[in-house]
Amino acid sequence: MDTTTRLLLPEVTEALRRHPQELVELTEELHPADLADLVGALELELAQTFLDVLPVAIAARTLEASDEDRRVALYQASAETAMTRAVAISDEMAADDRADLFARLPEELRARLFESMDVEESRDIRQLLSYREGSAGALLTTDFVALPASMTVAEAIERVRQSAAEMETIYIAYAVDPNGTLLGAVSLRDLVTSPAGQTIDSVMNPNIVAAGVDDDQEDTARLLAKYDLLALPVVDAEHRILGIVTVDDLMDVVQAEATEDAQKMGAVEPLDRPYMATPVAQIIRARAPWLVALFIAVMATENVLEHYSRSGMVSLAMLMWFVPLIISSGGNSGSQSATLIIRAMAVGRIEMGQTAGLLGREVVIGLILGGAVGTVGVLRVVLTESTRSVAMAATVGLAIASVVTAGAIVGSGVPILLRRLGIDPAVASTPFIASVLDIAGLIIYFEIAGLFLP
Amino acid sequence: MDTTTRLLLPEVTEALRRHPQELVELTEELHPADLADLVGALELELAQTFLDVLPVAIAARTLEASDEDRRVALYQASAETAMTRAVAISDEMAADDRADLFARLPEELRARLFESMDVEESRDIRQLLSYREGSAGALLTTDFVALPASMTVAEAIERVRQSAAEMETIYIAYAVDPNGTLLGAVSLRDLVTSPAGQTIDSVMNPNIVAAGVDDDQEDTARLLAKYDLLALPVVDAEHRILGIVTVDDLMDVVQAEATEDAQKMGAVEPLDRPYMATPVAQIIRARAPWLVALFIAVMATENVLEHYSRSGMVSLAMLMWFVPLIISSGGNSGSQSATLIIRAMAVGRIEMGQTAGLLGREVVIGLILGGAVGTVGVLRVVLTESTRSVAMAATVGLAIASVVTAGAIVGSGVPILLRRLGIDPAVASTPFIASVLDIAGLIIYFEIAGLFLP
Repeated sequence: MDTTTRLLLPEVTEALRRHPQELVELTEELHPADLADLVGALELELAQTFLDVLPVAIAARTLEASDEDRRVALYQASAETAMTRAVAISDEMAADDRADLFARLPEELRARLFESMDVEESRDIRQLLSYREGSAGALLTTDFVALPASMTVAEAIERVRQSAAEMETIYIAYAVDPNGTLLGAVSLRDLVTSPAGQTIDSVMNPNIVAAGVDDDQEDTARLLAKYDLLALPVVDAEHRILGIVTVDDLMDVVQAEATEDAQKMGAVEPLDRPYMATPVAQIIRARAPWLVALFIAVMATENVLEHYSRSGMVSLAMLMWFVPLIISSGGNSGSQSATLIIRAMAVGRIEMGQTAGLLGREVVIGLILGGAVGTVGVLRVVLTESTRSVAMAATVGLAIASVVTAGAIVGSGVPILLRRLGIDPAVASTPFIASVLDIAGLIIYFEIAGLFLP
Repeated sequence: MDTTTRLLLPEVTEALRRHPQELVELTEELHPADLADLVGALELELAQTFLDVLPVAIAARTLEASDEDRRVALYQASAETAMTRAVAISDEMAADDRADLFARLPEELRARLFESMDVEESRDIRQLLSYREGSAGALLTTDFVALPASMTVAEAIERVRQSAAEMETIYIAYAVDPNGTLLGAVSLRDLVTSPAGQTIDSVMNPNIVAAGVDDDQEDTARLLAKYDLLALPVVDAEHRILGIVTVDDLMDVVQAEATEDAQKMGAVEPLDRPYMATPVAQIIRARAPWLVALFIAVMATENVLEHYSRSGMVSLAMLMWFVPLIISSGGNSGSQSATLIIRAMAVGRIEMGQTAGLLGREVVIGLILGGAVGTVGVLRVVLTESTRSVAMAATVGLAIASVVTAGAIVGSGVPILLRRLGIDPAVASTPFIASVLDIAGLIIYFEIAGLFLP
């Protein structure tokens, strides 16, 4: 909750209970993002009353800025009590936000809304709903300025001026031929700085960067960031422009993808809502499969221990003391490598051809880090009276060095392998890497012990 | 390397060796971001030759889009061989990118450059260099449009048109009084849709969102994202406008902060360069302190094992078999909680007042997950011939349930505690959480064993 919201909330709640109409004045002062905060903090019923007294255009802006759950709940209630007003609100909403909203409405209600609205509007929503989730298409808005290439600069400025209110952005317009094929981009900056009589095709930039409608959202965001653009046109296979995606939507994508990656790396299925808004049951469903799967995998450590205990190794009891230390060193080193590699892949910093060099780097890094940590381990053995022996020191030191190196190799190798297989490397969670290394670490440790100890 | 770069690289290398001048034609077709990719892929000496043949303005754009290391190396070489051209290039660069570049130049060279340039330019750079790294000030650019509040819309459009070439953005202008105090914002959209004779103070939006010069970059990015803005004005304590930060710079901040968080969570000191561009020695320096520190911390597990072994517990050897399984369950559960909480905090989804509720949720989640995983553990004990006993099953099952619950509490409690202390919660890395739980898990396990086993 923002400070503004916290300060206003008691007063607004009071007013809503007594004389809701008086709140309209307040709305003129507040940004829609702040209104959305307020609507999000109120009880659902009061939020509903609040939305009902807002002018249609402000209600639309407020819904656009609201959290998805709240937006759907409010709009649904509104549509069920006052269909005409609900249609008027959705007419005012940005095409992309409106399509997101409709995607989450119950089918029967959506059908009724489609019947009550203009054919053109409902066709637009249906079209946007048809794009694959996670694709550039799913983010696009059809509220953009298209200009015939033969128009003059003066005519174009007039066109932009007239359509400004309905457009997502007027700072970039796109030149198209009569089939809708994308020919070039022209910024409002270009328009205001060019002679009024020139034609669009002489001032536009024909070297245009566009996203394909099926392109991945993350790649689209990377493209926009690389070229520092405010919007990207989205085209179909015939290079016809379908709409645009804007920088604010892509900024949300960057945040959402980083959250998803971080969750996958913590061995949690990505949540589709903010943590505090997700019911406990859903968090448990997102965590339990991984936790149980990892648990079952690590059960193999028990077999390993049993195996070596049967082999009758004399000093097994003493060796046992170092088991947690050795397996956690491998897990830590592996987590570090995986963290670095997966994030570097996510921001597009590692090419396919670089993977051999990358593994080489990690082996070198692993050996040096392993040497350092192994030395600390040797000191520990030597300084503890009950374990002091050359054989024990050699076993522990060498095991730690090997396990840390193995950690670097597994931690970098698994994400590389996953990407080769076309799987998102972020699923190579740090707990998963740590679990693989628990088992590998035990085997390495006891095999080395077999060499040094009687 | 992009496809464009890969395709062009052999041809460009060849041309640079024989007749560099012919490359100028090529530059007219390419976007500066692509030129920067090319310059980044060439050997340093050839990249230098390439930059030298580019027109000054294109060279400036190319440097702006280049990776920081390459940018500094190229500009430094250029300044040492052709000071006048170097000064001309920096004159053309965006104020914020130029200041970043100068921050990394050797002091002696910077001083010589300051002497060769206009007093006004060098004062601008010095001013920008004075802002704290990581603050809104460090991102700001002074290339923005300021308008007197009494100007008319027609005059303002003319002013914008004339200054367009030098400005970072012309889509937002700021109304100021004669002292430079920020009065309001006016978008180019507002200007082109308002009557020509109106004054700026009647069309501007006076409810303006601004960042303080010392505000954190991450908070600034969040503010911009919340209000879907293209730029934010940055003001000093007296609300005088110092400059603006633009959405493209803040998008880079969002990416960089997500990378930094992910690295901290993997117990790696944040790298200031992309992974593949970071020398092996530096990666080792970023990893070694954490790896060794965690290693030393986990050494306590050995003391714990030694302690319980001295107590003469009969079935210690058998208990040992389950040690890796039990401590890894705690680590995994803790990593999951920490991942969810830290990311939710990073995107501003958890308020200070919600922490008690959050801990409560995690306890519930931990108990349910612990119950599930503990049941699997009991089955495992019962199904293994050599360990089958009611006491053993009870010990292992209860220990796992307790350790998983402890994982949820530690994994969420540590980030909350860190934030209370004003420390970035992302330093509560998943390996750190796992290590704390290694030790706690052993103690819990053996204490429970003491209750059930003779």
